[in-house]
Amino acid sequence: MAADIERIRHSFAHVMAEAVQHLYGGVKFGIGPAIQDGFYYDFLFPKPVAEEDLRAIEKEMRRIIAQDQIFVREEVTKEQAKELFRDQPFKLELIEGLEEGTISIYRQGDFVDLCRGPHVESTRELKPDAFTLKTLAGAYWRGDETRPMLTRIYAYAFASKAELEAYLKMLEEAEKRDNRRLGKELDLFSTHEEAGAGLIYWHPKGGRFRVALEDWWREEHYKNGYEILFTPHIGKSWLWETSGHLGFYKENMYSPMKIDEDNYYIKPMNCPFHIMIYKSQTRSYRDLPLRWAELGTVYRYERAGALHGLMRVRGFTQDDAHIFCTPEQIEGEIEEVLRFSLSMHKTLGFKEIKAYLATKPKGDGAVGDPARWEQATESLRKAIEKEGLAYEIDEGGGAFYGPKIDLKVKDAIGREWQLTTIQFDFNMSERFQIEYIDSDGQRKRPYMVHRALLGSIERFFGVYLEHTAGAFPLWLSPEQVAVIPVAPLFDEYVKEVTAILKGKGIRATAMLSEERMNAKIRDAQNQKIPYMVILGQREKDDRTVSVRLRTGGQENGIALDAFVARVLEKIETKALDL
Amino acid sequence: MAADIERIRHSFAHVMAEAVQHLYGGVKFGIGPAIQDGFYYDFLFPKPVAEEDLRAIEKEMRRIIAQDQIFVREEVTKEQAKELFRDQPFKLELIEGLEEGTISIYRQGDFVDLCRGPHVESTRELKPDAFTLKTLAGAYWRGDETRPMLTRIYAYAFASKAELEAYLKMLEEAEKRDNRRLGKELDLFSTHEEAGAGLIYWHPKGGRFRVALEDWWREEHYKNGYEILFTPHIGKSWLWETSGHLGFYKENMYSPMKIDEDNYYIKPMNCPFHIMIYKSQTRSYRDLPLRWAELGTVYRYERAGALHGLMRVRGFTQDDAHIFCTPEQIEGEIEEVLRFSLSMHKTLGFKEIKAYLATKPKGDGAVGDPARWEQATESLRKAIEKEGLAYEIDEGGGAFYGPKIDLKVKDAIGREWQLTTIQFDFNMSERFQIEYIDSDGQRKRPYMVHRALLGSIERFFGVYLEHTAGAFPLWLSPEQVAVIPVAPLFDEYVKEVTAILKGKGIRATAMLSEERMNAKIRDAQNQKIPYMVILGQREKDDRTVSVRLRTGGQENGIALDAFVARVLEKIETKALDL
Repeated sequence: MAADIERIRHSFAHVMAEAVQHLYGGVKFGIGPAIQDGFYYDFLFPKPVAEEDLRAIEKEMRRIIAQDQIFVREEVTKEQAKELFRDQPFKLELIEGLEEGTISIYRQGDFVDLCRGPHVESTRELKPDAFTLKTLAGAYWRGDETRPMLTRIYAYAFASKAELEAYLKMLEEAEKRDNRRLGKELDLFSTHEEAGAGLIYWHPKGGRFRVALEDWWREEHYKNGYEILFTPHIGKSWLWETSGHLGFYKENMYSPMKIDEDNYYIKPMNCPFHIMIYKSQTRSYRDLPLRWAELGTVYRYERAGALHGLMRVRGFTQDDAHIFCTPEQIEGEIEEVLRFSLSMHKTLGFKEIKAYLATKPKGDGAVGDPARWEQATESLRKAIEKEGLAYEIDEGGGAFYGPKIDLKVKDAIGREWQLTTIQFDFNMSERFQIEYIDSDGQRKRPYMVHRALLGSIERFFGVYLEHTAGAFPLWLSPEQVAVIPVAPLFDEYVKEVTAILKGKGIRATAMLSEERMNAKIRDAQNQKIPYMVILGQREKDDRTVSVRLRTGGQENGIALDAFVARVLEKIETKALDL
Repeated sequence: MAADIERIRHSFAHVMAEAVQHLYGGVKFGIGPAIQDGFYYDFLFPKPVAEEDLRAIEKEMRRIIAQDQIFVREEVTKEQAKELFRDQPFKLELIEGLEEGTISIYRQGDFVDLCRGPHVESTRELKPDAFTLKTLAGAYWRGDETRPMLTRIYAYAFASKAELEAYLKMLEEAEKRDNRRLGKELDLFSTHEEAGAGLIYWHPKGGRFRVALEDWWREEHYKNGYEILFTPHIGKSWLWETSGHLGFYKENMYSPMKIDEDNYYIKPMNCPFHIMIYKSQTRSYRDLPLRWAELGTVYRYERAGALHGLMRVRGFTQDDAHIFCTPEQIEGEIEEVLRFSLSMHKTLGFKEIKAYLATKPKGDGAVGDPARWEQATESLRKAIEKEGLAYEIDEGGGAFYGPKIDLKVKDAIGREWQLTTIQFDFNMSERFQIEYIDSDGQRKRPYMVHRALLGSIERFFGVYLEHTAGAFPLWLSPEQVAVIPVAPLFDEYVKEVTAILKGKGIRATAMLSEERMNAKIRDAQNQKIPYMVILGQREKDDRTVSVRLRTGGQENGIALDAFVARVLEKIETKALDL
């Protein structure tokens, strides 16, 4: 969040607190920070307040804003602060926790708050129509469930009315696109609490999307010099002790299964298995680089409350790969993997992509040779710059085992989603002591890079569902053509045309229920089927058909052959338009 | 095993016992049955014997056989038997265990044995060159490790020398084809005891086979009206209690993992997950049949000692499907699934296929409506007969939950392997209470059929490796074309041609090491690469190449374009020849 908007949101929070002070007696004040899309403030009200009260608070806030109140910063001693907030137990507790020295407070109107600032100069800088109070929620003081429950009022707030409106519209749109909702409406997937929360069941139509996506993924990986592996979902404790996961990752892993006398863990990551294959023979510098990919399903613990449709799950299929290469190859390999990622995202129709480069953490927690850290980080930076990508550096934000790039894509309604991660690993390669024989006959440690392009198939499916609102590009559509009779009289004709389309490898569906044509068209549109072929009077000689598009257009009198050719060409080229 | 050959083998066993009695004093005799390819006899020798002693025993056996000794059956009382075998503690123990009444013994030469028979009339019926003693092994008396360890001598035995020789040749061939050996030689897969026995790691070349196989499998399933599902690998205890697996299948399942407060089991079967999807909405008779397939990886317990390469593992991917249909549809569905199975096996090149029909078990353990059992069994029988398949009936051999067909294929060296199972399930459909609304508005129970065509991808890979000796058909070959320069001078040309082949989707490998051409050709042949393109003097205008086949043939002066077209056509048609 930029500094300006953070100042605006934080100032709005103070105005809300002032309004509450005006409207209610004896309120105790908690804290009121800016957040990602607005602000909140925690209050202890002497008597319960309800959602209906929010409108009155908004009104009072607008009155305050109109008064052009100045935000005044003052510095006081700890003693003065305690005196000033003598009736405010939460503020007193915060003051106790502060270091010795002066304490800053902010005043506007008759409200004073303990506050580090900064704020806008005057309420004049806040637009009375650029905020809206959103909801009430209970929140324990300091997040501690043994402390009092306060009432948190959430608000959306922006610099201008236009930005607020755009944001509210985006939220409304996001709700319509919610992957859980679309998953049900389009019969794509389900989850089943009783059989285990956070586990995705792919229905036939979801399966068709996944097969089309994975077929493409495999084909592209082969074309780009990868090999595809398949490895087990469970491994004996030896594997996870050696990898270190039982040390640094155990809280994300499930408890072990016992087989004979040994403990087996279901895998949270694929890497140790790929390393076992690496180590299954002596590797020479001639064998490198090795690019090994796997659609590997992993299982990780997530709190039940954190689970969310396809976006946060307990079992997911990483579109994983590991690259093993020499120091001489690393720069080229990173360039290649970044180029490959971007080409995949482009095919999928993502236009805005931003990189985030996380570098070596401070302190001495990081493992691996400092020279390698530097070479690795430079190779990441150079690759980003070579591709001309916008990027931010997260200084010191890397994992202890290596630097990484994350790629975030912007979706159709402006939200950013992280998909790709390109992560160096200096830890695993050390722990498993992987080696290659260099041209000088010496045993050397290869670089090892983890990489997931889409992240996970499940989460990607969620992101893509929300990005496209379920209107997938033709090549990924579970149903590509709906074949609809104008009346039941033409059912046989519909079957015949459907068979022709299927014979060409087109995912065609004959809509033969007793519903009327218009209901079928609506149904096909609701199912986001790209093309509807409407069949009426049979013109067998030239077989011309009438085609409606999911997007609303209609074209009459197209020869069936020409239509088939067009559909096949668009599938083949993975066209985004119809 | 036919009665004749069993009699011959059992008589050989007695002859071996007689030979041992001649050669060693004070031997105690255990038992000596006929087995699948010969016989064994267990002895307690007063002093150790070694493999070298087997030749002397064989020689003595041949001497006995030449004497034309008659096998004489006698009936004695239990008391007489005890007297007769007073020096033979194991025989005495066996006599103790027999019911009251007469006991049969068999004599030939100076040897007598407690024996139910039958035997051949005379040793004249045994061919002296139709057996060979194979090996020595330790075997606890009655398989009980608290009892004495006897020495078991195994032998191969047949009715004729020719049969023995054919069998030994098959064994030799089988050893060369052993999937564990080929897996290593061809770098296809590995297992890693330290990370967990019986778990298959697919290497890049194994992965290429699997991707080609699975791509085809998916395509064929879609063409044949199946949908493809993806379901989780773990499920909460509720699921397995409901399915009944925690009751009747628990010893094959691994111990539970704890997630929050619940027990989760890694799946031994996919069915309950498919049923959850079935139940996720109300199904109408119009929706049926549903044919839902999944390449679902399951985990089952096998004793460590039973694990064997790809053939018996602890984790495997079933090429599973479930069919849900109405009673009216069942006959057609079974015909369809059998036809589909046979067409898949035919594409894979299996020519001899035999069916085994297992019917309702006796007693009252079986679940489900008797009329349904009958209809189901009849549908299986009719389908087999319609396809004109050879079959055997295993009367009463079905599972308690439904009848089934197994299909066994004969491999290139005459061994039978079970691949396909088509299994009715009256249990799961009851337990989960699955239903559909029939045309009369009534809720009815659909038929549910499990079906795996290849069985499991891992085991099928093992069978296919042994069937083809690693010389896969072109379309399944991990490497399809090796491109070999006659000398390093032509490396660039090799790279160029390899790139052209790869661009056409052909799995081509440039062989650019410093080895000599002949070594490369040998290497490619050892790797069972179908085609070798040998490149020497560059004839850029017409690009004619010289092609060698894995099978040994050679063709010179083929235009590269013509070669590419031929390779592509053979891949496309899944040709079995080159």
